Amino acid sequence: MTPELQQKCINTIRFLAIDAVEKANSGHPGMPMGCAPAAFVLWSRHLRFNPREPRWPNRDRFILSAGHGSMLIYAMLHLAGYDVTMDDLKAFRQYKSKTPGHPEFHDTPGVEATTGPLGQGISNAVGFALSQKMLKAQTGAPIDNFIYGICSDGDLMEGVASEACSLAGHLKLGNLIFIYDDNLVSLAGHTDVTFTEDRNERFEAYGWHVQSVADGNDVEAIDKAVIEAKRDPRPSLISLRTVLGYGSPHKANTHDAHGSPLGKDETIATKKNLGWPLEPAFLVPDDVRQFWAGRIEEVKKGYDEWQKKFAQWQRDNPKKAELWNTLVEKRTPGDLAEQLASAVKLDAPEATRKHGQAVLQKAAQLVPAIVGGSADLDPSTFTYIKDGADVGPENYGGRNIHFGVREHGMGSIVNGFAYDGFFVPYSATFLLFSDYMRPPMRLAAISRLQSIFVFTHDSIFLGEDGPTHQPIEQLACIRAVPNMELWRPADGLETAASWAAALERKDGPSAFAFTRQKLQPLQRSGKADVRECLKGAYALNDVADPDVVVIATGSEVALAQAALPLIDKKYEVRLVSMPCVERFLKWSGDEQRKLVPHGKARLVAVEAAGGLDWYRIVGDGLVIGIDRFGASAPEKALADAYDLTPPKVAGRISKWLNEGARANTKE
Amino acid sequence: MTPELQQKCINTIRFLAIDAVEKANSGHPGMPMGCAPAAFVLWSRHLRFNPREPRWPNRDRFILSAGHGSMLIYAMLHLAGYDVTMDDLKAFRQYKSKTPGHPEFHDTPGVEATTGPLGQGISNAVGFALSQKMLKAQTGAPIDNFIYGICSDGDLMEGVASEACSLAGHLKLGNLIFIYDDNLVSLAGHTDVTFTEDRNERFEAYGWHVQSVADGNDVEAIDKAVIEAKRDPRPSLISLRTVLGYGSPHKANTHDAHGSPLGKDETIATKKNLGWPLEPAFLVPDDVRQFWAGRIEEVKKGYDEWQKKFAQWQRDNPKKAELWNTLVEKRTPGDLAEQLASAVKLDAPEATRKHGQAVLQKAAQLVPAIVGGSADLDPSTFTYIKDGADVGPENYGGRNIHFGVREHGMGSIVNGFAYDGFFVPYSATFLLFSDYMRPPMRLAAISRLQSIFVFTHDSIFLGEDGPTHQPIEQLACIRAVPNMELWRPADGLETAASWAAALERKDGPSAFAFTRQKLQPLQRSGKADVRECLKGAYALNDVADPDVVVIATGSEVALAQAALPLIDKKYEVRLVSMPCVERFLKWSGDEQRKLVPHGKARLVAVEAAGGLDWYRIVGDGLVIGIDRFGASAPEKALADAYDLTPPKVAGRISKWLNEGARANTKE
Repeated sequence: MTPELQQKCINTIRFLAIDAVEKANSGHPGMPMGCAPAAFVLWSRHLRFNPREPRWPNRDRFILSAGHGSMLIYAMLHLAGYDVTMDDLKAFRQYKSKTPGHPEFHDTPGVEATTGPLGQGISNAVGFALSQKMLKAQTGAPIDNFIYGICSDGDLMEGVASEACSLAGHLKLGNLIFIYDDNLVSLAGHTDVTFTEDRNERFEAYGWHVQSVADGNDVEAIDKAVIEAKRDPRPSLISLRTVLGYGSPHKANTHDAHGSPLGKDETIATKKNLGWPLEPAFLVPDDVRQFWAGRIEEVKKGYDEWQKKFAQWQRDNPKKAELWNTLVEKRTPGDLAEQLASAVKLDAPEATRKHGQAVLQKAAQLVPAIVGGSADLDPSTFTYIKDGADVGPENYGGRNIHFGVREHGMGSIVNGFAYDGFFVPYSATFLLFSDYMRPPMRLAAISRLQSIFVFTHDSIFLGEDGPTHQPIEQLACIRAVPNMELWRPADGLETAASWAAALERKDGPSAFAFTRQKLQPLQRSGKADVRECLKGAYALNDVADPDVVVIATGSEVALAQAALPLIDKKYEVRLVSMPCVERFLKWSGDEQRKLVPHGKARLVAVEAAGGLDWYRIVGDGLVIGIDRFGASAPEKALADAYDLTPPKVAGRISKWLNEGARANTKE
Repeated sequence: MTPELQQKCINTIRFLAIDAVEKANSGHPGMPMGCAPAAFVLWSRHLRFNPREPRWPNRDRFILSAGHGSMLIYAMLHLAGYDVTMDDLKAFRQYKSKTPGHPEFHDTPGVEATTGPLGQGISNAVGFALSQKMLKAQTGAPIDNFIYGICSDGDLMEGVASEACSLAGHLKLGNLIFIYDDNLVSLAGHTDVTFTEDRNERFEAYGWHVQSVADGNDVEAIDKAVIEAKRDPRPSLISLRTVLGYGSPHKANTHDAHGSPLGKDETIATKKNLGWPLEPAFLVPDDVRQFWAGRIEEVKKGYDEWQKKFAQWQRDNPKKAELWNTLVEKRTPGDLAEQLASAVKLDAPEATRKHGQAVLQKAAQLVPAIVGGSADLDPSTFTYIKDGADVGPENYGGRNIHFGVREHGMGSIVNGFAYDGFFVPYSATFLLFSDYMRPPMRLAAISRLQSIFVFTHDSIFLGEDGPTHQPIEQLACIRAVPNMELWRPADGLETAASWAAALERKDGPSAFAFTRQKLQPLQRSGKADVRECLKGAYALNDVADPDVVVIATGSEVALAQAALPLIDKKYEVRLVSMPCVERFLKWSGDEQRKLVPHGKARLVAVEAAGGLDWYRIVGDGLVIGIDRFGASAPEKALADAYDLTPPKVAGRISKWLNEGARANTKE
C-alpha cells in the first residue's frame, strides 16, 4: 500500500465523521479526526473479524470507550463491510437509525457494547477480556483473540476505570489492549486544568504494560506498539499523543472541536487543508473501497481457518464442545425453578441471603454458565460457589471472581461478561451499595443484558451498621429503571423463584434484595408452589371477596402475616406477597384486578423502605414504609422505633380503614 | 512519657474498642487494634484541637475514612476530653446513642464527617483541605491547620478515592495527610486475592508525597513520617503496615477480626497476651487519664494563642474579618429571591440552564460563600462564575473549581466543603450522571449538608446524545432520597427561586434539574412572583373550582399550558406548576387540598420522566410520563415519538377524563 493511499484511507475516516456530524448538526468530530490513524492501524493490520458474522466467537473485540466519538466506529464498520450502509451514516443521530449519537449494543452490527457514559467501555472491556480467558480455560477451545479499545481522558478520570483497570492488572489480562487518546483536551478545556497525574505511571502501578507513542499520525509507531502489546503478558495501555480535531485549521487542539460540528466554513477549510475534495460529502474514494475489499478478503481467510480448527476441536473434544454449546445457549433445565426450590427449607426461620446461598449452589450445578462474585463481601452476601475454584491471575478456570471493594467496576465488568455472551454473570454487595453501581445497572437494562445483581442487607433491619448502610430509597430506585426486574423474596421458595427467573430471563438484568436477618416461615393456604412465586405476585391466604388487600414484599410479608389477626375483625383481609413488582405490572389489567381488586377493595402496601413507588400499585391506598433515614441499633429496637412491629402495623391499618381518609395527603 | 505508659495509652484504645464491640455484640474491633498506635501518635503529638470547642476554625481535622473502625475515633474523642462519656462508649451501636455503628456527623462532637461507605471520608477530606486553602487565600486569616485521616484498603480500592486523590495531587493540597492502614486483610480475605497494585506508586503518579512505615507499632517511625508529611508541600500518604486485630492470639491478621466481636474467650486471650487486666471492661488506667489531662492542657494553650492571633488579625483586617463572618454565617440578603429574579428575563424562549447561568452570576455577587464547578462541563452546564478566578494548584483565591470528569469525587469533595462550613459549594454535571454520584448526594442528605447539586440536560429533550445520556428515572431517584429537595424550574422565575431556596436552606442538600433546550415563556394569570415559586407549587391560571388539576414541572409546564386549550372544553382545568415536590409535601393537608383538591377534582401529572413517583401526588389519577428509555434523535422527533406534544397530551387527558378509568392499571 502506498503512503498516499494510506493517508487517503485515514482521511476517509476523518471526513466521514466530519460530514456526518455536519449533516446531523450534532455530534463529536474532534475525536475521530485525531484517532483515525490509530483506528486505521487496528482495523487494517490487527483486528480479526468477519463483517458477515459480527458475533464470531474468536473475533477480536473493539470497544470504543470514548463513545462520543461514535462516528469513528460507524465509519470503520461501514468501510470494513458490516451492515452499516452509506444511508445509515447519513442518518447519524436520527430516530431509529443504526447510527445513534452514542454506540448502542443491539442497534448496530459490530458494536460490542453501549458506550458514552465515560469509564464504562474500558471497564466492560475488562469483563470481555476475563470472559474470554475463562472461556478458554474452561473449555480449552482454540480462543486466541484480543480485546482492543480506544479510551479518552474522561474515561481515565472516572473512578470506575480505576477500579476495573486495577483488577485487570491484578488478573494479568494480557488479551486486553487499549489505546489512550491522549489529546490533552477535554470538553471544558485543556486537561492541564485538572488532569496532571502521570497516567502512565498510574497504569504501571496497576501492573499494566505501558507504552507511549509521541505522534498520533505515526502509523508505523502505532503498529509497532500494538505488536508489542500483543506480545506482553500484561494488559496494555498505549498512550497516544493525538491532536483533537486534527486537520482543522482553526479548531484543532481546542475544545471547540470536541462536541459540536465544525461548521460549514471550517469543514471546507479542513478539506482544503488536508487536500480533500470539497464535494461530494461522505466521499469514499474508489481505491479506498478497493483496499477495504482486500482487507475483508484477508480477514475472511483467518475466519475460515479458525472455523476449521474449531470444528476439529469440537470433534476431538465432544464433552468440552458440549460445554461450549451449553455456555453459548445459556441452557437451563425445564424444571429449573422446582430444582432450585428443592435446595431450600421452608420450615425454620432463615435469612433470605442464606436461602440465596443454598439456591446459588444448586443453580451453579445446573447452569455451568454462572460465574460471579462479590465486592469483598462473600462472608456476608453468601455468594461464593463452593464447587467452583477462585479466579486468579493466570488461573482462569474458576467461577468465583474476587472483585475487591470496587462495586462500580464490578457492575461494569459483569456487564462485559453479559455482552460477551458466554457466561451468566452475577455481582454481589449490600443493597445500599447499589448506589455505587447505578451506571452499569442502568446500562445493563438499556442493553438488555443478562446481568444479575445480588444485594443483601436489604433494609434497616440489618441493624447496628446504621443509616449509611441501611437502604431506604434503594428499592424504589432500582424499580425505577426501565427493563430491570427486582426480586425481594420473602422466604426460600421465593428466593428459588428469584434465581430461576433471573436465569431464564435473557433480555434484561435482574436484581435481588435479600435480608441479613432471619425471617419467620410463611403460612400458605395453598401448597408451596414455586411457579406461583415466579408470577411475581400471589395471595398467601384464601379470601374470596376481600375488603382489604395488604401487599408486602420480603421481610414484611411475615410481618404482615403476623399483623393480620390483629387487624380490626370486621374486615376481610387478603395478604398478597409481591416479590417482583415488575412482573405484576406486566399482567393484563383483568389479571391484576383479580388479585388486587382496585376500586372494590382498599389497598395497603407494607415495605420497610421509602415507599414512594408503591402508590402506583395502591393509588389512593395506604403505604406503610419509612420516610426518613435509618439508625444504628439492634433490629428489634428499630422495628419498634420505625413502627414496624405486628401490633403497630395492624393498628395503623385498622385506624386508616376506620377513618376512611386518603393516606398520602396529610390530615 | 515512659515507654510503659505509652504502651498503656495505646492498649487503652485497643481495649476500649474490643470491650465496646463485645458489649454491643456487633462491630469492627480489628481496625482499632491495628491502628491504635497511629491514632495515639496523631492525637498525642500532632493534632491541635479543643475538646470544648469542636468546631474551632483552626483545629486540625481528623477524618476516619475507614468508618467501620468507629470505636477508634470514639475512644480517642473520649480520652481527649470531648463530650463522649464512658456511658456513651458503653452505648455503642444502640438507638440514639452518641456512638452509632459508623461515625455520624451531628451525632458526636468531634466527628467531622459521616463515614462508613468506603472511599467517602478520604474524598471528603480533599474537600476539607481545599476549603481551608481557599479560606486562607480568600480571607488571609491565620489558618495553618492540617487535615488528617486514616483510610483502609477498601477506601483505596473505591474509584471515588481515585478521583478525589488525583485532584488533590493536581491541586497540591499539602495540608492533607492520610495514614493508609495497610493491613493486607479485607472483609473477605487477604488483599492479595484482588488488590496487588502498587499503591505507593499509584499515589506518586497522582503527585502525592508517599512514605512507608514498616511497623504499625513503631511510634517513633510514625511520628517521623507525620513530621515529614507536614513539611512536604504535596498531599501525603503514609503507608503503614499494620496488623488487623493486633494482639489477638488467634484472630490477628485474619478477616475474622474485621467485622465481628472477638468473642469472650478471645477477648480474655487478647488481654492476657497484651498484659491487660481482665476486669473491669472499659478500663482507662489512672495514669492514662492523667496523660490525656496534660495533653488537653497543652492543646488548650495552642488554642488560646491562636484566638489571640485571630483577634489581632480581625482588628488589623476589618474588611477581611467581615468577609470571614459572612462566610461563617453564610449570610444571604433578605430579598435574595427578588434580587435573583431580577437577573432573568421572562419574555423570550430560553433554556433553564441559561437562566441558571444568569442567576448564578447574581447569586455569586450576593453570597460570597458560593464556590463550585463542574465535572468538565462548564460550557454545557453554564455554571462558571464569571467574576471569580479559577482555583488551581497554589492558587486558591478563585471560586471556580475544575473537578474533571470525576462526578463521584466531585460530589464527595463538595460535601467536604459543606462539612467544613465556610463555603456553600455546588457541583454541576448532566442529570444522567447523577447516577455516578448517588453516594455523596445521599450522604449530604443524611448529614444535613448545604451541598448544591446542579444538573442540566434533564430529559430526553436533550436530543441526539441518546438513551445513555437521557434521564428517565433520575428525577424519581433523587426525590426518593429523604431530606433532599429537588427543584425542576419551568422558567427564569422558578430558576431564581431554586437557587434562592438552596442558598437559604442550611439543613440539607438541594438539587436542580435544568433543561438543555429552550422553553416557551409561561403565561401567569397573576403577577410573576418569585415568592409563589419558592413555595414549591402554585397555580398558573385562575380556576376557582376545577374539574381537573394538571400538575407539571420544568419543561412540561409550558407543554401543559399549550395543551390546556386543546383539552375537552367541558372540563375546567387548573394548571399547577410544582417545581419542588418536597416543598409541597411539607404543606399542611388543608393547604395541599386547596391547591390540589384530591377527591374533588381529578388529578393529572405531566413530566418527561419515569413518573412512578407521581402517584403519591395524584393517587388514582393519570401520570403522563415515559415508561421506557430514550432515543437518539432531534428534540422534535422525540416529542412526537414519546407522545409529548400539546395535541397528544391534551388528547390523552381528554380520553382519560371521558373514560373515567383508573390510570395506573391496564385496561
